[in-house]
Amino acid sequence: MTVNVGVIGVGMIGQDHIRRLTRVLSGARVSAVTDVDTGRAKSVGDGLPGEVRVHENGQDLITDDGVDAVVVTSWGPTHEEYVLASIAAGKQVFCEKPLATTREACERIVDAEVAAGRRLVMVGFMRRYDAGYRAMRDAVAAGDIGAPLMFHSAHRNPSVPPHYVSDMIINDTCVHDFEIARFLLDTEVVAARVLKPRQNSRASDHLTDPLLILLETASGALIDVEASINIGYGYDIRGEIVGESGTVELAESTPVVVKRDGRFGGRVPEDWRERFVRAYDAEFQEWLDAVAAGRSTGPSSWDGYAATVVCDAALEALRSGERVPVSLREKPDLY
Amino acid sequence: MTVNVGVIGVGMIGQDHIRRLTRVLSGARVSAVTDVDTGRAKSVGDGLPGEVRVHENGQDLITDDGVDAVVVTSWGPTHEEYVLASIAAGKQVFCEKPLATTREACERIVDAEVAAGRRLVMVGFMRRYDAGYRAMRDAVAAGDIGAPLMFHSAHRNPSVPPHYVSDMIINDTCVHDFEIARFLLDTEVVAARVLKPRQNSRASDHLTDPLLILLETASGALIDVEASINIGYGYDIRGEIVGESGTVELAESTPVVVKRDGRFGGRVPEDWRERFVRAYDAEFQEWLDAVAAGRSTGPSSWDGYAATVVCDAALEALRSGERVPVSLREKPDLY
Amino acid sequence: MTVNVGVIGVGMIGQDHIRRLTRVLSGARVSAVTDVDTGRAKSVGDGLPGEVRVHENGQDLITDDGVDAVVVTSWGPTHEEYVLASIAAGKQVFCEKPLATTREACERIVDAEVAAGRRLVMVGFMRRYDAGYRAMRDAVAAGDIGAPLMFHSAHRNPSVPPHYVSDMIINDTCVHDFEIARFLLDTEVVAARVLKPRQNSRASDHLTDPLLILLETASGALIDVEASINIGYGYDIRGEIVGESGTVELAESTPVVVKRDGRFGGRVPEDWRERFVRAYDAEFQEWLDAVAAGRSTGPSSWDGYAATVVCDAALEALRSGERVPVSLREKPDLY
Amino acid sequence: MTVNVGVIGVGMIGQDHIRRLTRVLSGARVSAVTDVDTGRAKSVGDGLPGEVRVHENGQDLITDDGVDAVVVTSWGPTHEEYVLASIAAGKQVFCEKPLATTREACERIVDAEVAAGRRLVMVGFMRRYDAGYRAMRDAVAAGDIGAPLMFHSAHRNPSVPPHYVSDMIINDTCVHDFEIARFLLDTEVVAARVLKPRQNSRASDHLTDPLLILLETASGALIDVEASINIGYGYDIRGEIVGESGTVELAESTPVVVKRDGRFGGRVPEDWRERFVRAYDAEFQEWLDAVAAGRSTGPSSWDGYAATVVCDAALEALRSGERVPVSLREKPDLY
Repeated sequence: MTVNVGVIGVGMIGQDHIRRLTRVLSGARVSAVTDVDTGRAKSVGDGLPGEVRVHENGQDLITDDGVDAVVVTSWGPTHEEYVLASIAAGKQVFCEKPLATTREACERIVDAEVAAGRRLVMVGFMRRYDAGYRAMRDAVAAGDIGAPLMFHSAHRNPSVPPHYVSDMIINDTCVHDFEIARFLLDTEVVAARVLKPRQNSRASDHLTDPLLILLETASGALIDVEASINIGYGYDIRGEIVGESGTVELAESTPVVVKRDGRFGGRVPEDWRERFVRAYDAEFQEWLDAVAAGRSTGPSSWDGYAATVVCDAALEALRSGERVPVSLREKPDLY
Repeated sequence: MTVNVGVIGVGMIGQDHIRRLTRVLSGARVSAVTDVDTGRAKSVGDGLPGEVRVHENGQDLITDDGVDAVVVTSWGPTHEEYVLASIAAGKQVFCEKPLATTREACERIVDAEVAAGRRLVMVGFMRRYDAGYRAMRDAVAAGDIGAPLMFHSAHRNPSVPPHYVSDMIINDTCVHDFEIARFLLDTEVVAARVLKPRQNSRASDHLTDPLLILLETASGALIDVEASINIGYGYDIRGEIVGESGTVELAESTPVVVKRDGRFGGRVPEDWRERFVRAYDAEFQEWLDAVAAGRSTGPSSWDGYAATVVCDAALEALRSGERVPVSLREKPDLY
Repeated sequence: MTVNVGVIGVGMIGQDHIRRLTRVLSGARVSAVTDVDTGRAKSVGDGLPGEVRVHENGQDLITDDGVDAVVVTSWGPTHEEYVLASIAAGKQVFCEKPLATTREACERIVDAEVAAGRRLVMVGFMRRYDAGYRAMRDAVAAGDIGAPLMFHSAHRNPSVPPHYVSDMIINDTCVHDFEIARFLLDTEVVAARVLKPRQNSRASDHLTDPLLILLETASGALIDVEASINIGYGYDIRGEIVGESGTVELAESTPVVVKRDGRFGGRVPEDWRERFVRAYDAEFQEWLDAVAAGRSTGPSSWDGYAATVVCDAALEALRSGERVPVSLREKPDLY
Repeated sequence: MTVNVGVIGVGMIGQDHIRRLTRVLSGARVSAVTDVDTGRAKSVGDGLPGEVRVHENGQDLITDDGVDAVVVTSWGPTHEEYVLASIAAGKQVFCEKPLATTREACERIVDAEVAAGRRLVMVGFMRRYDAGYRAMRDAVAAGDIGAPLMFHSAHRNPSVPPHYVSDMIINDTCVHDFEIARFLLDTEVVAARVLKPRQNSRASDHLTDPLLILLETASGALIDVEASINIGYGYDIRGEIVGESGTVELAESTPVVVKRDGRFGGRVPEDWRERFVRAYDAEFQEWLDAVAAGRSTGPSSWDGYAATVVCDAALEALRSGERVPVSLREKPDLY
């Protein structure tokens, strides 16, 4: 069976997912697109194989009978509306992070899904599909390192674009570290603190770069996340779980080691595409396979909700310099 | 465009490629199958989505109008016939190695393709699509290590099945090392020698395991290939090019490093599937994309011919203990 | 010239330094010993080559004309007395850490040395002589990674002896991390915080294991120190400096990589002796060479004072859970 | 006890050993020197602490009562004479490699030592004291990799001095690889072959650089040694033993990993001093300790003899291009 996918939002990320659906993965076709810029939607639709309907808006796309499942890659503040509409239409929806931009919006989605009685939403936290993080989780599950006590994470970007502001260090960048920490440690965050080292002189004046974010969890495990967003040398994602009797850490990902000029060494990824291209592919293929099989899979609305709430606390901690408690609602049985 | 693929031979490798075509890659469907065991062909065909014709023999499949391109994964000695028929039919054909089992058969294929005036054959040397080997070749091309002078290769299998005989060390196992050496060094092999260390006591009595195979090349670069086919610890493929001013070697491929019990370390792949799964996918996707675009790509009939001739020389060297020259015919302009 | 060394305190560490002086390094002999247990002093002295005087107490040893320089490896609370006496006698003294157990005692030593007008004290912070840390410092000095912004340190012990109490995590264990951070970042600590993850179930009930200790510095660089003192798998010292444009971290120290049973990997040191044996030797040889040349070298009284003050703050932070400022007196010109 | 050492030959290597004896190691002093250039001997002697006798020739030095043990670091062709004289004088002698320059000369030394009834000679094969090679040997002895079947060795020099000729690739450079192979595999070499890849364009015209040298052993294990003597990037010594069920290889020796400019990596040693400084120290300290204790230790005359015979065979193989058998005399019980 070929899954007919409708895509809401065909900007850079939307187009990358369309490329994935049409030229990399198996079992899907793009049957409909829409975008706030209708001209762009039309242009993208024209470039695709087969008949692709171009809709005026997301609601029309979602209710289109020729759309089996929905991908939401529009601007963050619009996510809630499209995800709720997909749930209402009883269609599986893949929503790029964030699930929604406020805690309340996330709760409305969780409520709607619980009311629908089944999981219809998958949130695009692609790190869960990275071979490294999966092997870390497997090592913990296998008891290789004992119960996890700490997670050291580092999120290093070579640079950030001009429109990047400090809140994005939390909301766009480190949200991935928070989320994967929840996945790896299998627990919820209960408090956040943010420490500010001296500013990197390579960073724009308005950016609090780097940061060290500290998260306490319900299990008692402690998480520290280094955010260095102008470090120049590469896109370097580090992670190490410290257990009671051992550790597991992400290995370097270079395919070859070169020796020259007195040094041996390997490549650091240039950007998130290079580092996580396989994770994006695996994530989407798993979603497509689940859709085709009538199943649900992957990071849920609950995960999207929890990530947003943790980011809110971290943002408050960044502003106040204080320890900020995180409180989640009761977790519904659906999750 | 969806490429309609006909598959000749649906044993273990054929079925794995069918899985790839139908469940992993983009742009293909299996439209026809055949097998020496017609029952097996029927059973495989029934399990596939859409209409799949089951043919009595390869010739019928190749001339089926519903087949755009052919995959040959039948028994080695049958390859020549199906590849020649595909060329005659003007259809692109992906042929698992070997291209053919004798030098003469390979030459007939080369002749037919030259007569056809265009490349229609791709041989399944998947290592050329491995990220490690590609980065090695890129490093050489970029001048990172100077002109290549030696290539050290090691091909280590944890074990081999009961039907495995010593000739297969050359023909089935180290053929991959010979072929990738040609690709990496961009030159042809001109002579072969084989040295026999003491036998591994874990090997069956009839196996000459391990071996050290030495190949001289037209460029003067020297190739040494260690074959250890009962080494137990894992499937470990090592490779290092020694250049005039530096070296490049395959990195370990583990996703994580675990520390426990006084040691740190990572995983060695269990088998060739784990090690080369991505290369197989990339190889096939490139072939499908080329077929859809009406282009040719990948390892050619010439490469398949050269690999067979080098294996012949290495086999003779294994038997005689002597240095055996390799002579190739003149290389046609097509390649 | 052979340096005649008098050793005060011939317990385990004292005997190890005596072994070093007499059987490993060049240019020294042990000419006198003393110990709170005179029988032990006599027994150790008898086992040494040449004439070795056994003194009733440290004061007598220090004023012995046959003693050119003094090594203090007695119980921590006695250090102040012997170091002050050595300064008074105008003799170079190597004092194992801590320089003294209280801030005030350290200040008295600094005052005495300043009054003497020249440096006579070297404190046994051996990490400064470790090839790894030296290379880290060199990398920073060479501008390889830009200005340092963070230092991640981890101090992992396989286990601790029964008499070990939580204060020792700060005073005996992490003092090394604090001290080397000062050396690497070339700045002073201005505040300390201590976070307590869930306790390691392998630890005795009274131990706060693990800890995450956070230190702010005058330069604005942030230091985080993981202390895991019952981690079982080995004695593992990790360190990474994050700079504005790069990072430098301690490499694994294994001499060989072994591949077996599906894994590749190396050895983690068993204990501090294995990990730092070379650093101890280098430290002592540098001290001996300096003594012979009439020079001063190595970690100074000021460094010993600063380390003690930082430990005091960290201890208070461990107890209070709060951020505790660190204030040092004005640094004398001597240092 | 302090060992009074007499040094014959105070060129670069002799002076380095003198530095070691007087400024690095414990338990020795240089009591006498001599050199073919008496002025140089005098000058070196004057620079040393204590009374140092300067002798007209090696014979006088050896019979000097103030010399407990002899170090021979003179020109290779003179080694035989001084080693024989040391044996005649009943004094322990440390002889830099080669033990002697001809097979016959080595045999005369072996005969003399056997006649003396005890081992008096240690040959300066320092690799046996390198932590990496020792760990490799330990791994084999512990059964970690099963019985050894192959040893891959690579000896890479950044460059060679103008007076270097091709024979020195065997006699001065790869002799270390041959010798350590004997130590690691615990067997004797029985045949040699040499293959010549294309010449490195960075090498002088008269040099056969690189080479691949193949040695067969009595145990059946096969040894391959890559010699690359103008590879520019560093002094890189690689080694890997392939066993029946695993492998053990030398790890990289960098103290730190630096990340910058899109790459991570470490340092390759600059020269043999940097790479083997610890091995030289350990070798000499073991010799001194043995001398002081009246024991013998280390690589013996037999090892020196065997190394010379293997080099002879490899040289013949380099010239003839043929497989050259190696035959050793019967091994005396003394060894």
